[in-house]
Amino acid sequence: MTADLVTLSLEEGFDLAVAAFLANGCDRRNAEAVARNMMRAEGDRCASHGLFRLPGYLASLKSGKINGEAEPKVIDLAPGAVKIDGDGGMAPVALEVGRDPLAEKAQTNGIAALALTRVHHFSALWVEVETLCERGLAGFAFTAYKPVVTPGGGTQALYGTNPMAFGWPRPGKDPVIFDQASSAKARGEIQIAARDGHEVPPGTGIGPDGEETTDPNAILKGAQLPFGGYKGANIAMMVELLVAGLIGEWFSFEAAEGDKEDGGPPRGGEFMMAIDPARFGDADGWAAHCEAFFERFQAIPGTRLPSARRYKNRGETPETGVVIPKALFDKITEMTAA
Amino acid sequence: MTADLVTLSLEEGFDLAVAAFLANGCDRRNAEAVARNMMRAEGDRCASHGLFRLPGYLASLKSGKINGEAEPKVIDLAPGAVKIDGDGGMAPVALEVGRDPLAEKAQTNGIAALALTRVHHFSALWVEVETLCERGLAGFAFTAYKPVVTPGGGTQALYGTNPMAFGWPRPGKDPVIFDQASSAKARGEIQIAARDGHEVPPGTGIGPDGEETTDPNAILKGAQLPFGGYKGANIAMMVELLVAGLIGEWFSFEAAEGDKEDGGPPRGGEFMMAIDPARFGDADGWAAHCEAFFERFQAIPGTRLPSARRYKNRGETPETGVVIPKALFDKITEMTAA
Repeated sequence: MTADLVTLSLEEGFDLAVAAFLANGCDRRNAEAVARNMMRAEGDRCASHGLFRLPGYLASLKSGKINGEAEPKVIDLAPGAVKIDGDGGMAPVALEVGRDPLAEKAQTNGIAALALTRVHHFSALWVEVETLCERGLAGFAFTAYKPVVTPGGGTQALYGTNPMAFGWPRPGKDPVIFDQASSAKARGEIQIAARDGHEVPPGTGIGPDGEETTDPNAILKGAQLPFGGYKGANIAMMVELLVAGLIGEWFSFEAAEGDKEDGGPPRGGEFMMAIDPARFGDADGWAAHCEAFFERFQAIPGTRLPSARRYKNRGETPETGVVIPKALFDKITEMTAA
Repeated sequence: MTADLVTLSLEEGFDLAVAAFLANGCDRRNAEAVARNMMRAEGDRCASHGLFRLPGYLASLKSGKINGEAEPKVIDLAPGAVKIDGDGGMAPVALEVGRDPLAEKAQTNGIAALALTRVHHFSALWVEVETLCERGLAGFAFTAYKPVVTPGGGTQALYGTNPMAFGWPRPGKDPVIFDQASSAKARGEIQIAARDGHEVPPGTGIGPDGEETTDPNAILKGAQLPFGGYKGANIAMMVELLVAGLIGEWFSFEAAEGDKEDGGPPRGGEFMMAIDPARFGDADGWAAHCEAFFERFQAIPGTRLPSARRYKNRGETPETGVVIPKALFDKITEMTAA
C-alpha cells in the first residue's frame, strides 16, 4: 500500500459507508441499502460506482435534497406494472422494495415493468439487473441524469449520460450483463483527463462553441457526444422517454433546473423491465440453446463476455479487499465526524 | 423520368407486388400483407425495404423456403405474452395477426410482449412499431439475420445486422420512431460501394484477415463492425438473445447454417414489446409532458426528430408516386410472367 491509498476489506468498506450515512441523517435501513449497492460495485472493482460516490450522497443529505429516512411505497399500477414511490430517498432502498413485486409480476405475466419515481440515482444499474437474473429472469434498467450529451447532429446538451443495462440469466452460471452509458465516454474519464492535463480521443465531445475538440476542459463546459453518432443519441432519447415521459418523472433538462447543485445526484426516475424466458420459447431447453450461442461467442478470438471481468474481480476482492484513494478515505472520515 | 427509372403510383406499386406474389405461390392474404408493408416503405421513400426486396422474397418462394400460403396461429403464452407461429411464411402476415392481441395485452397489463416464430423477415421494423403508436402505445421491435457483424473486439461475424426499433406515441401527431441496425453501416451501402468501386468510411468493417479496411469487397468477404464499438455490439447481442434465446428461434449463426442461400430472407424470429403510458405515470398529462421535451429537442440547431424525413416523404408520394430502377421493374415483371 502506498501512502496515497487505503486498503479496506469489504466489511470495512461497508461499515465505513454505513457510519457515514448514519452520521448524515440516514436511518439504518437507508444507510445499509446504499452501502450494500456501493460495496457490490467496489467488490467488482467498479470504483466509479463505489465509495467514490459517497461524498456526493453525503453532500445531498446535508443540503436536505435527499431524504435519508425515505420509506418507499409500493403502488400497484396494473397486472404487469408496479411503481415504487421512492419518497425522495436514494435509489437502492427503493429498488430493494421493488425487486420481489417486479419478479413476481414477470413470472405471472411473462413480462412486467417497474417505475421508480422520486429517487436520487447515483448507483450502478447492473446490481439491480443481476438480482433479476438470479431469479431466472432477463432484465432491463434505464436511468437519466442532467443534460450533458447532445442529440444527433445537435450542438447543445439535452440528454443525461443515460445508462442502459441488460442482463441475461444463465442458470448455474454468472449472468451476462452489460451496463453502458449513451455517451461515447464516461464523464469521469473526461474529468480525470482534465485533472491530469491529457487530451481525450476525437469523438468524445464538443466545446461551448459547438465544435468538436479533444480538450477535456472545453468538453466539460460544452457537451459530450453520444456513442455511435445518431444511433447512440436515439438510445439516449429512448431512455429519457422511458424514465421521465412514461413514468411521470423529470427529464434530464428538468432535473437540472430543479437541482440544488450540491454535488449529489439530482432527482430522477428509473425504469426496469423483467422477462421470464420460461414463459416464452422452450421452457426446458432455452438455457442450453443460449449456451450454444455463448460457446460460439467465446470461440471468437479477442472477445470477452460483458461482465466477465467483474466476476473475476468478485472472486478476488473478498481476499484482497479494495483500494481507495487516501484523500477519499479522509474525506469520508471527515464528513462522518463533522 | 430517365430511361433507367420507372415511376409508379402507390397503387401501381402495390398491384405490381401483389401480382408478383400471386404468380409465385402466394395466396391473396399473404401477397397483400407483404405488399402493404413494402409500399409503406416505398411511400416513405425507404427504398431499401420496398420493392427492392421483392426479388429476394420471390426467389425464396420459388425455392420452397418460404410458405406463400402461411396461416399464422395465435398462441397465448401468459397474461402478458402472446406468440404468433408464422407457419413458415413472411413476417408481415404474421404481424398483422399479432397486432391486436399484443395491443390488448399491453392495455390490460401495462406492458406485454409478442414472440414471432417461424417467419422469414426482410421488412422494415418501424412499420409494425407505428401500428402500436397509433393505438397510443410505446413499442419496441427486434430481429436478427445471418452473421455479418463481429462481437466487440472480435474478428469474425457472429451477429446479424440486428435492427432495433423504438416508437413513442404523440397523440394527434406523428409518433417518434427510430429503426436502426446494430452495424455501423447498412449492408446495402457497402454493396453499393462495391458495385460502384468506392471506398467505405473507416470503422465500417474488417477483411477476411481480421484487419480494418475501407475496401467494400474485403468487408463483404470479412465482417461488418457494430456501431459505436463494444456498446453497439452489446445491443446486437441483446437482440440475438431476445429473438432467438428467449422465444426459441434460430440465432443468426443457426439461420445461416439452415438457410437455402436462395437470396431471400433466412428463417428467424422477431420480438416486440408494447407499453401503455396511460397505465404508468400521469394518465392525463404524460403526452403534454413529452411535448415539452420534444420542444426542447427541436429548439437545438441541427437536430431532426427520428422519422421526420419519412413523414415528409409520406406527404408527397401519394402525388408524386415512387421511382424504382427500370432493371428492378423489369426483373419483377419477368419473375411474374415466368
